[in-house]
Amino acid sequence: MHKITADKDGWITVRIDPKYEDPWTRLDVETVIRPSRPDQPHAWTVVHRRAAAVVAAFTREGRLVLIRQERIPLRAALWEFPAGQIDEAHEDDDRVIHETARRELREESGYVVPDGSPLEPLGLFFTSPGFTDEHGYLFVARDAVRVESQSHHDAGESILEVREFSVPELRRMIASGESRDANTLAVFARMCAMGIV
Amino acid sequence: MHKITADKDGWITVRIDPKYEDPWTRLDVETVIRPSRPDQPHAWTVVHRRAAAVVAAFTREGRLVLIRQERIPLRAALWEFPAGQIDEAHEDDDRVIHETARRELREESGYVVPDGSPLEPLGLFFTSPGFTDEHGYLFVARDAVRVESQSHHDAGESILEVREFSVPELRRMIASGESRDANTLAVFARMCAMGIV
Repeated sequence: MHKITADKDGWITVRIDPKYEDPWTRLDVETVIRPSRPDQPHAWTVVHRRAAAVVAAFTREGRLVLIRQERIPLRAALWEFPAGQIDEAHEDDDRVIHETARRELREESGYVVPDGSPLEPLGLFFTSPGFTDEHGYLFVARDAVRVESQSHHDAGESILEVREFSVPELRRMIASGESRDANTLAVFARMCAMGIV
Repeated sequence: MHKITADKDGWITVRIDPKYEDPWTRLDVETVIRPSRPDQPHAWTVVHRRAAAVVAAFTREGRLVLIRQERIPLRAALWEFPAGQIDEAHEDDDRVIHETARRELREESGYVVPDGSPLEPLGLFFTSPGFTDEHGYLFVARDAVRVESQSHHDAGESILEVREFSVPELRRMIASGESRDANTLAVFARMCAMGIV
């Protein structure tokens, strides 16, 4: 359990019953005391996944890099911001999170950001806090340049296309519902709230 | 499997191996043929959850109703838009989805929307398409009025507070990272993209 979801402020983990585990996913039934009901330990199903780094990369022309990726749970391909999982052992290390963001951008889209152009962190978000601790660290990158024509990825990923979209194009895709994954919507929400788009 | 994630357009489900199930969560290892690699069936861990309805309810004064809810997987409470799960058997029925949205708004926040004020659908989104088919149907409600001072919820939920926030207040909470769940960020992204906020 990493710091972000560790017991604190009246939360007490009474028991953890492991139910399923593979290299990507762990499912436990966790019996927990909540601050609001200290006398009622409550059992809850929790799915654990590694945290992700998600990157909204702007080119010098102010366009955003998206990938179209096949998603097995949906039986469909979605246009999304590049993202990848962070090595769990190093999630407390900001440097590793930033490196993961840069690496995934390159591997998934073939774009790189100059070393002199730091990633701008937009904080984290939780994908579905009712049942999982999974969270994503959101970044904006600037001056992204395409250096490879193909994306590199493992057998579990199928990236079909890489394309740049203008901000008005992305806005239309979000308004129409074509853009429909939490990573992309969360970055866009933060960018809107911060006045970046 | 509901229509949204059913096999289509070259997707073929070869085999489903059930690994865990309880009333809220089902975990299967699914062997699937993807359109881009028709010769390579691929096994993938998929968590199934019921779809949710999520409501951004505006009062007549243009303020938004949020609830602060304890989330066991995070060992923390978050400010979120009211949301609740849709009866799986009826997810194809728009009327049921709208009714779920109204019911959850009332049960979680104590606010109701007049019958004559239809909910405005903002489409759906997927919370984490890399590992789950879970999705949320997003709505905007208008003219919300508080009719009960307390929220009603079951033992699995702990709603600590209900409060109205102005749009600039919510914008600041999103920009600062205080608002950090996908439901709230997804609704905000769609509302931004559509010019509602």
